[in-house]
Amino acid sequence: MKLGKIGEYEFVAEPFHCDFSHQLMLGHLGNSMLNAADYHSNDRGYGMEYLNTVHRTWVLSRLAIEMERMPKAYDKFKIATWVESAMKYFTSRNFAVMSADGRPLGYGRSIWAMIDTDTRQPVDILAVRDGLISEYIETDQPCPICKSSRVKIDDDVELVRSVSTYYSDVDVNGHVNSVKYIEHVLDLFDIDFYKTHRLKRMDVAYVAESHQGDLLNFYVQQMGDTHIIRITKSSCSKTEEVEVVRVSMDFIKE
Amino acid sequence: MKLGKIGEYEFVAEPFHCDFSHQLMLGHLGNSMLNAADYHSNDRGYGMEYLNTVHRTWVLSRLAIEMERMPKAYDKFKIATWVESAMKYFTSRNFAVMSADGRPLGYGRSIWAMIDTDTRQPVDILAVRDGLISEYIETDQPCPICKSSRVKIDDDVELVRSVSTYYSDVDVNGHVNSVKYIEHVLDLFDIDFYKTHRLKRMDVAYVAESHQGDLLNFYVQQMGDTHIIRITKSSCSKTEEVEVVRVSMDFIKE
Repeated sequence: MKLGKIGEYEFVAEPFHCDFSHQLMLGHLGNSMLNAADYHSNDRGYGMEYLNTVHRTWVLSRLAIEMERMPKAYDKFKIATWVESAMKYFTSRNFAVMSADGRPLGYGRSIWAMIDTDTRQPVDILAVRDGLISEYIETDQPCPICKSSRVKIDDDVELVRSVSTYYSDVDVNGHVNSVKYIEHVLDLFDIDFYKTHRLKRMDVAYVAESHQGDLLNFYVQQMGDTHIIRITKSSCSKTEEVEVVRVSMDFIKE
Repeated sequence: MKLGKIGEYEFVAEPFHCDFSHQLMLGHLGNSMLNAADYHSNDRGYGMEYLNTVHRTWVLSRLAIEMERMPKAYDKFKIATWVESAMKYFTSRNFAVMSADGRPLGYGRSIWAMIDTDTRQPVDILAVRDGLISEYIETDQPCPICKSSRVKIDDDVELVRSVSTYYSDVDVNGHVNSVKYIEHVLDLFDIDFYKTHRLKRMDVAYVAESHQGDLLNFYVQQMGDTHIIRITKSSCSKTEEVEVVRVSMDFIKE
């Protein structure tokens, strides 16, 4: 029997993945979203498991998460995910995060590209299995959060921190894990800040890959309740910094 | 119906929790063990969920993990856990890690204390619910790895790295998460090292707590294939360093 267009997966807010306030940390929620995307695409034949056999893989290009409420320690929660559109070089995938009894907690939007794992160059998504992904486009399911828009940042913003990258930053894809950037960005704010501010929305644009040994530099520009962060990488061999990720964070004072 | 003495829990080696070699990172395995311990004790009435209501909590004192084989990306695996002994101030809990079809992959041993969450002082484990934990002591189940022994380290070993601690290092307990130390220690070795060395066993002794803002200092002494690591904390307010964790790692060259 052919699977439906929407996949739904259960997770638990593990206690050691929750912060001082007993709420799930956003990085771990992001990881669960990426897992849901991975399970959903594998189950339907266009996931990493198949792609690796033909030297291709998915690459996350953008991720937006907007939450009204975070799961608390031990809460079961569900993530529904579906592909909203698929074009030659980009596909958009949405997420709905729900409590165990189905109440909406928040939503996510993401944009993915596909690359050749040998050349690291973009390839035609619709050429995989005769455009199999197109059979699973779901346009009726609402995802009531704004699409990500281009995040602007001034050139002369302050360097706030530099962070080295190590073994455990790198995942199966061989480059720094998408969620690790989110954790580093969350870490720019301290526990006292999180006691009075709730992170309502985070937009992440993945621009380039970084690898173990790269130094990540965090430049932050504040505009009201919004913080824009540019992450660059620098390495021993190159003095020039290259932008790898750009993030926008919208906080609500509580 | 009263639950059995041994609890068994299923996990998945999530792809983004696996390293460059597609094997589950040891820190994430450790997290799964702590989850298994937490589920097992909660289900039996002497877990963190109950303890928090009486201002008590479990504190991990020692953790040893010895693995023959690590789960690979997408592998389901099981962790069985049981309490081997319970005394006034310490209880020992063992773990068996198995593949989905029940083959042993490795084992773990741990020692826990209980503290008063207000005073942070040790309290009598057997005073909780009239010694309820004693009803679940399992001594017949084998755990065929050595107990942890005291790890000695010279006084004048090299400071290899200092690492700042941030928001995401701190879990529901309000102090730096036990698994974070494991990740920092794993990160003392680079991917090239892991390409030729397998971590067979890790022993971790948790000596004191550290908190957001503390600087963690890593001192390493190599003795053959064994690396001993002393982690100290220092903070702005105190110049004196205090030992927080001591680790022993046994590698096998492959």
